[in-house]
Amino acid sequence: MNEVSAERRGRGRSGGGAARRAERTAVTIETARFIERNIPNFEILNDEALEIIEYNAETVLEEIGVNFVDNPAALQRWRDVGADVTGERVRIPRGLARQLCATAPSSFTQHARNPARNVEIGGRNLVLAPVYGPPFVRDIEGGRRYATIEDFRNFVKLGTMSKWLHHSGGTVCEPTDIAVNKRHLDMLLAHMTLSDKPYMGSVTEPVRAEDSVRMSKILFGDEFVEQNTVMTSLININSPLTFDSVMMGALEVYARHNQAAIVSPFIVGGAMAPVTVAGTLTQVLAEVLAGVAYSQMIRPGAPVIFGAFVTSIDMNSGAPTFGTPEAAHITYGAGQLARRMGLPYRSGGAFCGSKLPDAQAAYETANSLNMALLAGVNFMLHAAGWLEGGLVSSYEKFVLDADQLGALHHLAKGISMDENGQALDAIREVGPGGHYLGCAHTQANFKTAFWRTNVLDYKPFETWEEEGARDSATLASIKVKKMLRDFEAPPLDPGIAEALKAYVDQRKASEPDAFG
Amino acid sequence: MNEVSAERRGRGRSGGGAARRAERTAVTIETARFIERNIPNFEILNDEALEIIEYNAETVLEEIGVNFVDNPAALQRWRDVGADVTGERVRIPRGLARQLCATAPSSFTQHARNPARNVEIGGRNLVLAPVYGPPFVRDIEGGRRYATIEDFRNFVKLGTMSKWLHHSGGTVCEPTDIAVNKRHLDMLLAHMTLSDKPYMGSVTEPVRAEDSVRMSKILFGDEFVEQNTVMTSLININSPLTFDSVMMGALEVYARHNQAAIVSPFIVGGAMAPVTVAGTLTQVLAEVLAGVAYSQMIRPGAPVIFGAFVTSIDMNSGAPTFGTPEAAHITYGAGQLARRMGLPYRSGGAFCGSKLPDAQAAYETANSLNMALLAGVNFMLHAAGWLEGGLVSSYEKFVLDADQLGALHHLAKGISMDENGQALDAIREVGPGGHYLGCAHTQANFKTAFWRTNVLDYKPFETWEEEGARDSATLASIKVKKMLRDFEAPPLDPGIAEALKAYVDQRKASEPDAFG
Repeated sequence: MNEVSAERRGRGRSGGGAARRAERTAVTIETARFIERNIPNFEILNDEALEIIEYNAETVLEEIGVNFVDNPAALQRWRDVGADVTGERVRIPRGLARQLCATAPSSFTQHARNPARNVEIGGRNLVLAPVYGPPFVRDIEGGRRYATIEDFRNFVKLGTMSKWLHHSGGTVCEPTDIAVNKRHLDMLLAHMTLSDKPYMGSVTEPVRAEDSVRMSKILFGDEFVEQNTVMTSLININSPLTFDSVMMGALEVYARHNQAAIVSPFIVGGAMAPVTVAGTLTQVLAEVLAGVAYSQMIRPGAPVIFGAFVTSIDMNSGAPTFGTPEAAHITYGAGQLARRMGLPYRSGGAFCGSKLPDAQAAYETANSLNMALLAGVNFMLHAAGWLEGGLVSSYEKFVLDADQLGALHHLAKGISMDENGQALDAIREVGPGGHYLGCAHTQANFKTAFWRTNVLDYKPFETWEEEGARDSATLASIKVKKMLRDFEAPPLDPGIAEALKAYVDQRKASEPDAFG
Repeated sequence: MNEVSAERRGRGRSGGGAARRAERTAVTIETARFIERNIPNFEILNDEALEIIEYNAETVLEEIGVNFVDNPAALQRWRDVGADVTGERVRIPRGLARQLCATAPSSFTQHARNPARNVEIGGRNLVLAPVYGPPFVRDIEGGRRYATIEDFRNFVKLGTMSKWLHHSGGTVCEPTDIAVNKRHLDMLLAHMTLSDKPYMGSVTEPVRAEDSVRMSKILFGDEFVEQNTVMTSLININSPLTFDSVMMGALEVYARHNQAAIVSPFIVGGAMAPVTVAGTLTQVLAEVLAGVAYSQMIRPGAPVIFGAFVTSIDMNSGAPTFGTPEAAHITYGAGQLARRMGLPYRSGGAFCGSKLPDAQAAYETANSLNMALLAGVNFMLHAAGWLEGGLVSSYEKFVLDADQLGALHHLAKGISMDENGQALDAIREVGPGGHYLGCAHTQANFKTAFWRTNVLDYKPFETWEEEGARDSATLASIKVKKMLRDFEAPPLDPGIAEALKAYVDQRKASEPDAFG
């Protein structure tokens, strides 16, 4: 199967009886190759609508402008390219931002320390990365609680063990037991040592972005990092139309080192963006144009992604809502705008507002995942584990979502029209009233024909009932424990592991802990 | 709002204290107008692929043929139009079936006894009907058990109360406590008296189809029924390529009376159809061509729907599986084939294999619902309440699914590009760093801008926890009870109600009970 780019067979931890050993030798860690779509994108807007939105976005940039806050150097850069700067407000003449964006690549390779895990971001591809940012975790036994570095490492391990995740992600949860000014070091160390998939860098202070570059240089070598992209990091725009100095500082560091940045408006429709879809798309495009243009002023050709984090708001409670039709509209439309700019597109995720990995969580998540696949998303952050509007990383939902990502891989393959796919001989063989289960065509194809879940229940009712009538969260909980038990760290040169550890220790010792 | 075709304000049952009365007077029963899509369909196959499938389907009809079992009159009809009949095998010369299908209408009105509930089946429309056929029901308190006529009436009531269901459906569950030869009478009576939405007729024996026509004539008047379509009934093809005499007998009754039939291959991929998507589409098209052609031989112009009930099979356990990528491929492709035939299209549903209304059920269901909307489905049976591969009608899932159907309505509206939708003035008013919640544009639009759930949880975490940390099944259970409590039968002429009751009583008295 060409979808599996690499395979690694491992043994479990040593010790224990023969039976346990036998069970463990069966462990296989596979990672699928990133999705290469063989299906069309869903184009919800016609050209006329897209041109109106593009025109309006330029109007926003020209008439209203954007704010670059606490960042005199950025203002100077904008002046230098011909923008009209008044105070912190940057008004960009029609067409200038789009022209500056032209140097951004339409696609780029993000390297992993295991080259078999490299991902190609852009084109018709889709790269899947886990949840990012939750301060809490939840599992069946422990309930909801603040996340720790132990949780963080567990989620990295689950990502390593998940076949359909191509990327290790970034802040899979906030390790709140580590000082704010040091936790990025432990997080990077976990990604670098417990996974061999690509990862994201820190963005919470420019100096932490510098740490991310330095640790990457230890892992990949100085020259490799200067010549290749080894991190894709998340730069949120403070919507509406505001670029703060922390995020821009991190963007500057990454762009300077030719590392990738997702320039991502953070849209809560009705709060940070207009309550209508076309209005939101206008603002999103204006923000991305300004942000991407800025990245190209730092270093023309630096890889950058058109981002759109989209949620709507419940006007009764003020709560953000997920998996909604309005979010789907925006995600489809933003994909079209990104493709017209020739930029890779980040959006979507296993989004939900539910507090539990229950039916609500799954309806909302499946709505979001399907929509993102068809919207042409190239990089999907939050593709597994997101719960409660992003406040919680859920162990069980991580596994349930990661399983659904397998369905996306199969959907994206499209329909084979070769002779085997047409199956005319099978129809001839079976004929009216017959049965396909035993026919030669079925026998030849059944192993690869259908996607199969790795966690959901397909058992006969009676068996399922005898086994305790378990719901999917319970089945997922069992799976989580097995994955963590079976986990084995991918091999890493001990000298590099040592050097990373030494860097982290030295940096931690160099300043006192800061919380908040 | 033009989406709400009719509204009826009712009072709860009389009796009880003032507080309870006050609560009850708030009950509003709304039904949304059927969906008129303002978004494109998802076209997964290109013209070349569609032509190959169409060519192959004609090859199947010509070379392999179809069986019309125990039905000499049907065989004679096929001979009369020029088919090659050997035994029960009918081989149809290339092009003949498609030519016979040409008289079938591309769209038709199914009338409801309340004209505001009429539905238009075909074109860019989507009509939603509840689950059909389960012998069991399940709810949180009672668990899984055989369905009774009491359950049946409850599900009809839930359908009446569900804003986003346009159709009352047919066998919302099997009333197993009523004799097999009489239960269709009680089922029809329930649809006719407890709902004013359109409904389906019985197909389990031709004589029961006749009963359905007679009872419809009591409800609508003789002449009205002969001149209008008041039933859409489900004619399953016994795939592969077999048309049994019971289903064809019912089809003949309905076609003769100009009542609509869904001609629907029953596809379990790998069992009743080839294990590949293109092969399955070929067989589906061959079966529909033969079935629809047959309906037009009975009465040219009789309304008929291109059906495709699609599931794949788990090759490990033999269980049917739902919400899979292969089912999505087939549903997208069959929609294209139906549109090329100029026929209304039936497929999709709130499909799942899960035994509980849990995360599995919802992932699978949301996959199915989204896919069906984008596939251009015109009539979606099983749109609410389906559980455990169709063995169970679930009270809680009915309500959860019906809520998600609201999201489909909003998705289908597409993106408004008028001046209000563009919202440029709102972006001007708010500006960089501002907030949209209070702006004039948001105030003017917030009530209609976003779809809002009627059952899922959007509450703050602390409130949710204080209220018992309820999952969605529990919230749905509460909703079910409220809907059944608030139910009020739509007004019906007492003379008609009397006559229907008399017909049922007389027919029941005319023959002994038969079970099985």
